[in-house]
Amino acid sequence: MSIDSVLESLAIELPSWAFGNSGTRFKVFGTAGTARTVQEKIADAATVHRLTGLAPTVALHIPWDAVPDYRELGRFAEGLGVRLGTVNSNTFQDDDYKFGSLTHIDKRIRQKAIDHHLTCLEIMESTGSRDLKIWLADGTNYPGQGDIRARQDRLAESLASIYQHVGADKRLVLEYKFFEPAMYMTDVPDWGTAYSQVSALGERAVVCLDTGHHAPGTNIEFIVAQLLRLGKLGSFDFNSRFYADDDLIVGAADPFQLFRIMFEVLRGRGLDPATGVALMLDQCHNIEDKIPGQIRSVLNVQEMTARVALVDLGALAAAQESGDVLAANAVFMDAFYTDVRPRLAAWRAERGLPEDPMRAYAGSGQQERLAAERTGGAASWGA
Amino acid sequence: MSIDSVLESLAIELPSWAFGNSGTRFKVFGTAGTARTVQEKIADAATVHRLTGLAPTVALHIPWDAVPDYRELGRFAEGLGVRLGTVNSNTFQDDDYKFGSLTHIDKRIRQKAIDHHLTCLEIMESTGSRDLKIWLADGTNYPGQGDIRARQDRLAESLASIYQHVGADKRLVLEYKFFEPAMYMTDVPDWGTAYSQVSALGERAVVCLDTGHHAPGTNIEFIVAQLLRLGKLGSFDFNSRFYADDDLIVGAADPFQLFRIMFEVLRGRGLDPATGVALMLDQCHNIEDKIPGQIRSVLNVQEMTARVALVDLGALAAAQESGDVLAANAVFMDAFYTDVRPRLAAWRAERGLPEDPMRAYAGSGQQERLAAERTGGAASWGA
Amino acid sequence: MSIDSVLESLAIELPSWAFGNSGTRFKVFGTAGTARTVQEKIADAATVHRLTGLAPTVALHIPWDAVPDYRELGRFAEGLGVRLGTVNSNTFQDDDYKFGSLTHIDKRIRQKAIDHHLTCLEIMESTGSRDLKIWLADGTNYPGQGDIRARQDRLAESLASIYQHVGADKRLVLEYKFFEPAMYMTDVPDWGTAYSQVSALGERAVVCLDTGHHAPGTNIEFIVAQLLRLGKLGSFDFNSRFYADDDLIVGAADPFQLFRIMFEVLRGRGLDPATGVALMLDQCHNIEDKIPGQIRSVLNVQEMTARVALVDLGALAAAQESGDVLAANAVFMDAFYTDVRPRLAAWRAERGLPEDPMRAYAGSGQQERLAAERTGGAASWGA
Amino acid sequence: MSIDSVLESLAIELPSWAFGNSGTRFKVFGTAGTARTVQEKIADAATVHRLTGLAPTVALHIPWDAVPDYRELGRFAEGLGVRLGTVNSNTFQDDDYKFGSLTHIDKRIRQKAIDHHLTCLEIMESTGSRDLKIWLADGTNYPGQGDIRARQDRLAESLASIYQHVGADKRLVLEYKFFEPAMYMTDVPDWGTAYSQVSALGERAVVCLDTGHHAPGTNIEFIVAQLLRLGKLGSFDFNSRFYADDDLIVGAADPFQLFRIMFEVLRGRGLDPATGVALMLDQCHNIEDKIPGQIRSVLNVQEMTARVALVDLGALAAAQESGDVLAANAVFMDAFYTDVRPRLAAWRAERGLPEDPMRAYAGSGQQERLAAERTGGAASWGA
Repeated sequence: MSIDSVLESLAIELPSWAFGNSGTRFKVFGTAGTARTVQEKIADAATVHRLTGLAPTVALHIPWDAVPDYRELGRFAEGLGVRLGTVNSNTFQDDDYKFGSLTHIDKRIRQKAIDHHLTCLEIMESTGSRDLKIWLADGTNYPGQGDIRARQDRLAESLASIYQHVGADKRLVLEYKFFEPAMYMTDVPDWGTAYSQVSALGERAVVCLDTGHHAPGTNIEFIVAQLLRLGKLGSFDFNSRFYADDDLIVGAADPFQLFRIMFEVLRGRGLDPATGVALMLDQCHNIEDKIPGQIRSVLNVQEMTARVALVDLGALAAAQESGDVLAANAVFMDAFYTDVRPRLAAWRAERGLPEDPMRAYAGSGQQERLAAERTGGAASWGA
Repeated sequence: MSIDSVLESLAIELPSWAFGNSGTRFKVFGTAGTARTVQEKIADAATVHRLTGLAPTVALHIPWDAVPDYRELGRFAEGLGVRLGTVNSNTFQDDDYKFGSLTHIDKRIRQKAIDHHLTCLEIMESTGSRDLKIWLADGTNYPGQGDIRARQDRLAESLASIYQHVGADKRLVLEYKFFEPAMYMTDVPDWGTAYSQVSALGERAVVCLDTGHHAPGTNIEFIVAQLLRLGKLGSFDFNSRFYADDDLIVGAADPFQLFRIMFEVLRGRGLDPATGVALMLDQCHNIEDKIPGQIRSVLNVQEMTARVALVDLGALAAAQESGDVLAANAVFMDAFYTDVRPRLAAWRAERGLPEDPMRAYAGSGQQERLAAERTGGAASWGA
Repeated sequence: MSIDSVLESLAIELPSWAFGNSGTRFKVFGTAGTARTVQEKIADAATVHRLTGLAPTVALHIPWDAVPDYRELGRFAEGLGVRLGTVNSNTFQDDDYKFGSLTHIDKRIRQKAIDHHLTCLEIMESTGSRDLKIWLADGTNYPGQGDIRARQDRLAESLASIYQHVGADKRLVLEYKFFEPAMYMTDVPDWGTAYSQVSALGERAVVCLDTGHHAPGTNIEFIVAQLLRLGKLGSFDFNSRFYADDDLIVGAADPFQLFRIMFEVLRGRGLDPATGVALMLDQCHNIEDKIPGQIRSVLNVQEMTARVALVDLGALAAAQESGDVLAANAVFMDAFYTDVRPRLAAWRAERGLPEDPMRAYAGSGQQERLAAERTGGAASWGA
Repeated sequence: MSIDSVLESLAIELPSWAFGNSGTRFKVFGTAGTARTVQEKIADAATVHRLTGLAPTVALHIPWDAVPDYRELGRFAEGLGVRLGTVNSNTFQDDDYKFGSLTHIDKRIRQKAIDHHLTCLEIMESTGSRDLKIWLADGTNYPGQGDIRARQDRLAESLASIYQHVGADKRLVLEYKFFEPAMYMTDVPDWGTAYSQVSALGERAVVCLDTGHHAPGTNIEFIVAQLLRLGKLGSFDFNSRFYADDDLIVGAADPFQLFRIMFEVLRGRGLDPATGVALMLDQCHNIEDKIPGQIRSVLNVQEMTARVALVDLGALAAAQESGDVLAANAVFMDAFYTDVRPRLAAWRAERGLPEDPMRAYAGSGQQERLAAERTGGAASWGA
C-alpha cells in the first residue's frame, strides 16, 4: 500500500469514557473542563475529529452512556460530524457481579448478564453500530475460589446465548485481559482463550486485542499477525503501558512497539475494509487533559502508520531471503527513524485540517472555555 | 531459636484499613458488616487478637483514621485489649497532590506534605506509636513529565525536614513500591532508593518492605537478608500477589515464598526486640469477609514462622558446607512440608485461645451480628 | 478419585538427557559419575524407577540418543525394567538451522527438518513409542529479520507434511515456549499458537505444556484446565523456574503452583488412560547430582498429587456455590498443607519399595561407584 | 551541552568478546570470518573505530584474552589506532567456581578468585587500563543451597581484599545482574546491592549498569539518574533485550528506552570527564556478523545521544513547572522523533569518516576477505 492509501484508510474510534475522569484505586483526580454527560463526551470526540480528520466514530459504554433515546443520540453525534460506533457492555459494577457475570455460578446472575448484552444488541439497532464488545471482569482472587473449568464452560454457554441474537451484519467481539480486577484467575486471560471461545461461536465472533492486556514481555505483534492469519482479529483497544494495564496514551511508552504492531496490521491487510479490524483507543487520561490527550493519541497512531507505510518491502524481503539479519533489521529501522511529521502536516493542509492539531487546540481557547462552563461534577467511570 | 521462643516473639500489627471496604479502580464492592468508623475497625482488630493472641497492635492511616482525641482513641483500644501502633501518612488523596507531594515541584505543596507528616508525629505522641511510616504515591506517568533527578533531590530535602522532628524513641520508615499509582516513574521504586534515602537521614530512619511492591521475579528474601545485614529493615507490609500489588492475604499466593522470607527474618534476628522489625499486614479484602480475612492472615504468618523454626540449622550448614545441593534443599523443604497445625492448636489451647480461630469466629455468630448492626455505609479508602 | 487410585495411575516419564551434563551459556560444569552414553542414561533412569516405582519409561532425544538399532535399545531398557517412551526431535543444533527449521525460508532446509521428523517416526516404530514431540528453537532475534506471518504459514505446511505420516496409534505433540533461544520472536511462543496449529492438523495432534515456558505471572493451571477442556493437552514437560526457563526440579520453586497444576489435571481427568496426558520431566541438573535429582523430582510430583487427592471436593463445591471465598480457599489449602509423606512411605513399603528413596539411593553407594567407573567424558547436550 | 560538544565527548568501549562467536546454551553457531585470537578481535575493533570514530578503546576479558605480554598487546592495539580499556575478570568457568567464587564457602576458592583479580590489577598496570570490572556468576539454584547473608558477608570481605590493591588512579567497578547463570539467588542481583557493597569499599569503587540485567519492567533510566546522583555510576554495559539478558544490539529492542537512558546520562553530566562514566558495549552477535553488528551498535548510541542533545531543556523545564504533562512529554518526544541521521552524516564527512559506516563496511569487501582468511576455528566464550 502507498502511504497515501494507507492514510486514507485509517480511522480511529474514540471511547466516550476517555473524556471522563479516571484514576487509580487510590484516587480519581478531577481535571477542569471534563465532560459531565455522554453528550459532552461526544462533543469532545467531535472536536478531536474536527482537528485531525482521524476519528469519525465514538464508542459507547453501557450503562455509563445510557440514554432514553439512542437514535436521538446518534443524530446528535452526526450533527457534530461523528457517528456512534462500538457498544461496550459493562457487567462489572453491579453488586450482583461481585463473583462474576457470564461465568457466575448462579444461573440467575448469568441470565442477568446475558440480558444486559441483549439490551446492548438492541441499542446497536438504534445506533447503527456493528460491534458488541465484551470485556469481562470475571475471575477469582484465590485458588479454590472458583472451578476454573466449570466457569469456562459456563462462559461458553453464556456467549452462545448472546451470539444467537447477533445479527447478520453485527459482530460479537471478545476481549481478553491478563489480570485485573481479578487477582488470581481471569476467565478470559489470553488470546488463546478468546480465540477458542469465539471459534466455537461462529464467524461473526472475533477477538479484541487490547495492547495493555498481556503478560510482561509478550510479543504483541506476533498475536496481531496470528489473529489476522486465523481471520479472528476483530478490533484493537490501543493504549500503552510500562507495567500492567496502565492505559497510557498509545505509543507513549514504546513507540517502536506500536510501529511493529502497525506493521503486522498492514502486512495482514488489517486496514482493508474486508478484514474489518476496528482501531479503537482505550485509555485513561488520569492526570493530563482529556481532549488533547486523545488528539495526541490519534496522531501517534497516524504517525506510526505512516512510518510503517515507508518500509521498503522489496528490500526487506530480499534481506530476509538472504539471511542478512542486520540488513533486514536496517530496512525496518530506516522507516521507523524517518521523520514523517512534515509529510503529515502537508497531508492535513491539503484537507483543510490544521497542520499541527495539538497547537491548534491549545490556541483555540476551548480548554479554558470548557473549564469555565463545565462545573458541578464531571463524569467518572470509577467505582 | 526454639519454636516456642519464636512463637512467643511473634506479634503482627493489623492495619485499620483492612477492616474497611476496598476494591479496584473498577469497583469497590461492599461486604455486609464492614466497619464504618475507626472505632469499629479497632474493635474488629481486637476480635482478631482475642481469637489468635497474635495481633496486639493496630496501625492507623491519617487522615482516614483522624479523630479529635487520639489519647481517647488509645484508651478505647486498650479497653478492647489492643494498642495503637504505626502511624501511616497519606499524601495521595488531596487534589494538591496530583503531581506529587514530598517531591512536588511547587514548594508550597511540598511544605503542605511535610506539615502533614509533622501532624502525624504529633499524633504519635498521643498514641505512643514508635513508627511514622511513609508511603508515597509520588511519580510520573509520562517520560519528560518530571525531572527524575530533581525530584529525588527534593525528596531528600523533604525527608530531612521531617526527620529532624522524629524523636529519639521514634523512627521514620520509608516504603518503596515498584509502580502504581504512577505508571512511568515512581520516586521511591526500589529498596536501593529507600535505603540510600534513609541512610542519608540517620539511624532512626529505616525501610519498609511491602511484599507486593517488587518487579516480577524479584527475590524478596534476598532483600530481607540484605536490609537486615545493613541494619535498615524497619518493617514489613505483608500481603501476597500473583501479578502486581494484588494485596491478597499473606501466604495465599506463594506459601513457600513466605517461608523463605520468614527464614531470612529469623536468620537475621529480625524478631529480636533489639532489631525492631515490625511485622505488619497491608492487605485488601476486596471480596472476602474482613475479620476472618485478617485471622487467616495472622495464622498464615504464624504457621509459616513455626515451619521455619523447625529447620535443622546444623544439618543445613553441614549440607551447605559440603556443597550437597540436594541435601541442603531437602533440609529446607522438610521443614516447609511439616504440618505444624496440630502443634499450633496445642499452643493456642495452652494459652486459652480457641484451637481453630477461623472456626471459632465462624461459629461465634459475630459476622451475622455485625452485618445486622452495621448498616448505612461502611468505611472505604478508595478514591 | 481416591488417593490410592490416583497414586496407581501416576507414571512419570524421565528424559534421557537429564542424566547427562547440562549448564548455561556460560559454562557446563561436569558432575562425577554422569552417564556417558544412552545406555548409561537408561540405566540411570531404571535406577530411579527401581527406587520409586514411578518412572516406567524413558524419553529419547534424536540425534542425541541415536543408535544403530533401536529394537535392541528397547530390549536393553526392558532388561532393566523400563521402556522407551516419547521421541523428541532436535532441529536446533545443525548449522543449517541457524535461521530456523520447519519455518525456514529455504525450502531445502525445511525439507531437511521434515525428513528428520520422518526419521523420528521410523524410530518410533522400533521403540514402540506413541508420541513424537516437537519443540522448535525457530524464531528471530531482531524485528524485521523474518516475516512472522509467512513463517507461521510455513510452519503449518511443514507440520502437515509430518502429520500425514503419523500413524493411527501415534501422536504429534507440539510444544510451545515463550522465548529462548530466539530473543525477539519465537514461532511457537504460546499455547494459543500450539493449539491453533495442532487443531488444523487433526485429532492426533496435541499440545505439550512445559511448565517453564511462559511469561512471568502466567496462570499455568488455567492453561492446563483449558487444554484439557479443549481435548488438546497431550503432555507435560515438568520443571520449575523462578525467572525464565530455569529447568529446575519440578516443585522446587513454587510447590503450591505444582499443587494447583495437578489439581486441574485431576479435575480434567488428565490421569485417565483415555485422556492420554503424558507426564514427563524436562529438567537440567546443572549443579546437583543427576540420579537423586530425578528421584527428588518424581517424588515431588507424587507427593503433590497425593495432596491434591486429599482435596474435599464436596466441601469445595459447597463453598464455591455459596460464594464463601475464604472457606473455598481453606479447603484447597488444607489439602496442600497436609503432610502426606508418612502415607507415601507406607505406600512404598507395601510395594517393596524403599520408604525413603532419596536415603536409599544415598546409602546404596551407587553414586560413588558410578563416579569411579564413569570417567573419560560424560554426555552433554550443550552446544 | 550543544549537540556538537555532546558528540565530541562520546566514546564507546568495545568488548573484545563481541568479535568472537557466542550463542545460547542450545548452540553456538559459527559465523564466517570471526576472529580467532585476541589480536584479531582487536583488529576488528579497530575497524569499527576507523569507520565510525566512536570506539577508541577495547575491553579485555581475562583469561579469555590472556597473552604473555600485555605491553606488547597494548602496542599492537595502538598500532591499529585503538587502546586497551577495561579489564574484565572471569571467575565463572573454572570448575572450582561451580558453587561460587568471591562468595564461595571454601576460603581456598575465595582466595583463588581474589588472586585472579590481583592478576587482573597487574595486567592493568601493563595495559594502562583504569577500570577493573567485576561481574560475578555467583549464586544458588535452590532455596537452602547457600546462606544468603553469609555469602553477602564473604562477598564484602573478598571485595575489600581486592580493593586494597586498587591504585589511586584505578577503579573497581561492580556489576549487578538480576539472574543467570544462577536460577534462584544471585549474590549481586540489583543496583542496591552493588551500591551498598561499593559504598563500603571507598570512593574508587563504583557500579556498572548493564542494561539487560534487570527485572521485567524496571525503569532503568531512574537507576541511571540515581547512581549519578549518588556519585556511583562507573560504567555501562550497553545492549538490549526483550525478555532476559538477551544481549542484543543496543537500541534494537526499545530505541526510546535508550533515548531516556542517554537523557539521564546527559542530565547527570555523565559524559563529563570528571564524572568518568565509561560507556561500554556488552553484546552477543549470535546470528549476525560481528563487525557490522558492532558498527550498528555504536551508531545507535551516537544517534540516540544526538537526539537527546536536541531536547529543548528550557521548554521542558517550563512545561514541568506548569504541570503540563502533555507539553512536557511533547518536548521529549519531539527530540526523539527528529531524524538526526543527515546531521550525523555531515559530522562524519567533516572528520573524514564515511558518511554511512554500515555501507562503507559492506562495500569494503573486508567481511569476505576475513571469511576467506580466518578458517580453522574461531574464538568462542561459551562453555
